[in-house]
Amino acid sequence: MAKISVLGTGNVGNTIAGKCIELGHQVMMGSRTKDNEKALSFAASNPGNSFNGTFAEASAFSEIIFNCTQGLATLDVLKAAGEDNLKGKILIDVSNPLDFSNGMPPTLSVCNTSSLGEEIQKAFPDLKVVKALNTTWCGIMVNPRMIGDGDHSTFICGNDDTAKQEVKAVLMTFGWHEKNILDLGDITAARGMEMYLPLWLRIWGATKNGAFNVKIVS
Amino acid sequence: MAKISVLGTGNVGNTIAGKCIELGHQVMMGSRTKDNEKALSFAASNPGNSFNGTFAEASAFSEIIFNCTQGLATLDVLKAAGEDNLKGKILIDVSNPLDFSNGMPPTLSVCNTSSLGEEIQKAFPDLKVVKALNTTWCGIMVNPRMIGDGDHSTFICGNDDTAKQEVKAVLMTFGWHEKNILDLGDITAARGMEMYLPLWLRIWGATKNGAFNVKIVS
Repeated sequence: MAKISVLGTGNVGNTIAGKCIELGHQVMMGSRTKDNEKALSFAASNPGNSFNGTFAEASAFSEIIFNCTQGLATLDVLKAAGEDNLKGKILIDVSNPLDFSNGMPPTLSVCNTSSLGEEIQKAFPDLKVVKALNTTWCGIMVNPRMIGDGDHSTFICGNDDTAKQEVKAVLMTFGWHEKNILDLGDITAARGMEMYLPLWLRIWGATKNGAFNVKIVS
Repeated sequence: MAKISVLGTGNVGNTIAGKCIELGHQVMMGSRTKDNEKALSFAASNPGNSFNGTFAEASAFSEIIFNCTQGLATLDVLKAAGEDNLKGKILIDVSNPLDFSNGMPPTLSVCNTSSLGEEIQKAFPDLKVVKALNTTWCGIMVNPRMIGDGDHSTFICGNDDTAKQEVKAVLMTFGWHEKNILDLGDITAARGMEMYLPLWLRIWGATKNGAFNVKIVS
């Protein structure tokens, strides 16, 4: 049992927070204001284990923080969380910098020469950013065995090896096989992980099924 | 037996041209000048079936043209080939707009709001551009059975359905299973196919093995 923080109250945040409760953790869901209905509803779902709070309170709550906010909002959310509440913590960055403001398909607000993962790491040097899980639909993130006997690939990257080992352990509790969690190196690999999204969206569009992932074959 | 043109004399061009010869086709390899040593050597390798010529001569040679030039040079190459030699033809665009001018990792010279595939289609509206095969190392392109019993995924996209069917047929002669050739839709999907490259390069870096591909699991 551990304490886990989840920033963001959307599908991804709720899915990950729910899985962490199922695994026996205490979880605080963070949102911009304390009266966020989805966060209140999460807190009411499992009294004693599920909590809600502001981004700052949720970040202060634990040593492991999932960033499940929309990519365009992430840097502001982390500013609201406060540098002191983030210092030395592990941020599992699940987000994608998808910009829907010009309609479909979305573009990436940052890519090619940088990535959201890198921008977060630059803005918060004392945070241990580990990019993870952003390459699948949230249902697969927490239940990889839903498809292909769980035998498919996921990626992590970040500058802190110890933090990556901890994130790997978390992913394994979600059902990911150790052999299928590929460490791509430092946080600059977030570029590749995020730039995969346009392909991911087209595969979804072509197959009409978001419950897929890729498996590395060699 | 058909006539096939291959623009480009690098590893990709040589691999694809060689495969087409092996399949019994007549192949002309195009290069900037007619005295290109690699193209001359290809032409000498299989007299009567293998030929060399300028980009213009190679484009005039057949109805199916593989673009195996470096992405940054492609538009200039096609200008040299000449609009009249390209009109109504199928261009199988295998290239990636990788820019190594700022060192490693390469960036993409076009991405996010467009792609090389789209730029080619815009510049040559009478050409039937089909993006294909750009997501694997060339050894796998022409010999998918090299890994995982050939059971892994490749993508095509383009605006002309008949052209895509022809390209699919070509890919099947290379060893790709029909079920594993996913049509992602119109040429704007080239964005996703090309933006996958940074992830592909990091997977290669992490596994130290370029002979891999991804398989869609659902």
